[in-house]
Amino acid sequence: MSTEAQPGTVYLAGAGPGDPNLLTLRTVQLLQTADVILPDDLVTDEILALASPTAEIIPVGKRCGQPRITQAGIHALMLEHAENGSSVLRLKSGDPLIFGRASEEMAFLREHNIPFEIIPGITAAFAVAATLQTPLTDRSAASKLILATAHHAAGKLEVTPKWTGAFPEDATLVIYMPGRHFRALADDLIASGIAPETPCVAVSKATTPQEKVHATTLHQLTDDAVGPAPVVLLIGHAIQPLTT
Amino acid sequence: MSTEAQPGTVYLAGAGPGDPNLLTLRTVQLLQTADVILPDDLVTDEILALASPTAEIIPVGKRCGQPRITQAGIHALMLEHAENGSSVLRLKSGDPLIFGRASEEMAFLREHNIPFEIIPGITAAFAVAATLQTPLTDRSAASKLILATAHHAAGKLEVTPKWTGAFPEDATLVIYMPGRHFRALADDLIASGIAPETPCVAVSKATTPQEKVHATTLHQLTDDAVGPAPVVLLIGHAIQPLTT
Repeated sequence: MSTEAQPGTVYLAGAGPGDPNLLTLRTVQLLQTADVILPDDLVTDEILALASPTAEIIPVGKRCGQPRITQAGIHALMLEHAENGSSVLRLKSGDPLIFGRASEEMAFLREHNIPFEIIPGITAAFAVAATLQTPLTDRSAASKLILATAHHAAGKLEVTPKWTGAFPEDATLVIYMPGRHFRALADDLIASGIAPETPCVAVSKATTPQEKVHATTLHQLTDDAVGPAPVVLLIGHAIQPLTT
Repeated sequence: MSTEAQPGTVYLAGAGPGDPNLLTLRTVQLLQTADVILPDDLVTDEILALASPTAEIIPVGKRCGQPRITQAGIHALMLEHAENGSSVLRLKSGDPLIFGRASEEMAFLREHNIPFEIIPGITAAFAVAATLQTPLTDRSAASKLILATAHHAAGKLEVTPKWTGAFPEDATLVIYMPGRHFRALADDLIASGIAPETPCVAVSKATTPQEKVHATTLHQLTDDAVGPAPVVLLIGHAIQPLTT
């Protein structure tokens, strides 16, 4: 693994949940040496403060429902700067390979023969669990961890993660981008087979100074209980300390 | 978040998959300042080389089926050193909150009023996907990620992750600690409703110089195809590049 960001190369890297201390060494190294940085909205200012003073930082976030830049626009920026011989750090919050457009970005880079590297990041599920000091799996209560998202497709929010079977009882479920309709989401999850009294915790802005935690049960989850996005919702019997 | 490891405090930290570049800044800081380090077997020498020269390193790994130290023994070591006023880094491979004994260690520390902090780490699923340059979810193929493990209970290997319903078709499944009986595991998964032609990739010693990758389908997975532990198995239609 080369040390500095290389000319003409794109780095698809995870910035983790927000706390700069949770960046990987590799991502810090790339932040400090990349010529061009393309961060998502959720990448915090504290993290971007680690960039080289000579780096060109071009925010490419697409705020909820109000696109400021298209996915094609992000592709064009990566291509333009890589072809100019710059090293490009495409910085995504959390981990780049889950619930993002990494597959499209990788396909585009392959198509244009741009060399790229993927650097994992701490995804929200683990950061939130560390904050809560709760295990995600447990020998007695949960043998699986399921990461899902509530879709925002065609202007319509689909809240059900769409289980094909009943929800596995021995699982912990973490929902990314749950939207604001927590009550409807909880009802859908109960209808899919999750017991109403199952512990659930919503966390807003995990690992940042603005972090907010709301611990309740699926049955008692309300629309207005939690702080601003990004929010993750943890559900399951392994989610312990704050709910006992 | 304080900077240096504090006296009398235990840090349950994730060391990530093996590559030191994938450590978080926070874990590096603790490696460099903790008085006592209690690493699992899978924490690499390259990572332990970052520890302070004055740190006392006490390996507490429990190799497959051959316990060298009991869980109670690990608890006793944490307690002894924390009560002596040392800062203690309990270093686990990957992330501490999944498929480990963190719940027991946290319960023990709470019971003895030992202050502790949890630091997340890069878990194998994301590290392996970065190596393979494959997304874990995809708008068209997979809207969930399921992390499961094959249990080794009472000397008997239970290979089925025990779905209560049919396996969700739009999921990516990552199996940690799959054991060596890949053929039996694959048969169980097919019996649980996963299509035999589903892409699957087994990765041994991900992110280390000894990494081995075997890409195949669930139907064609064989017992002897993959390298030594730790191995993770990725299954699903989102797992692309090496199988097309």
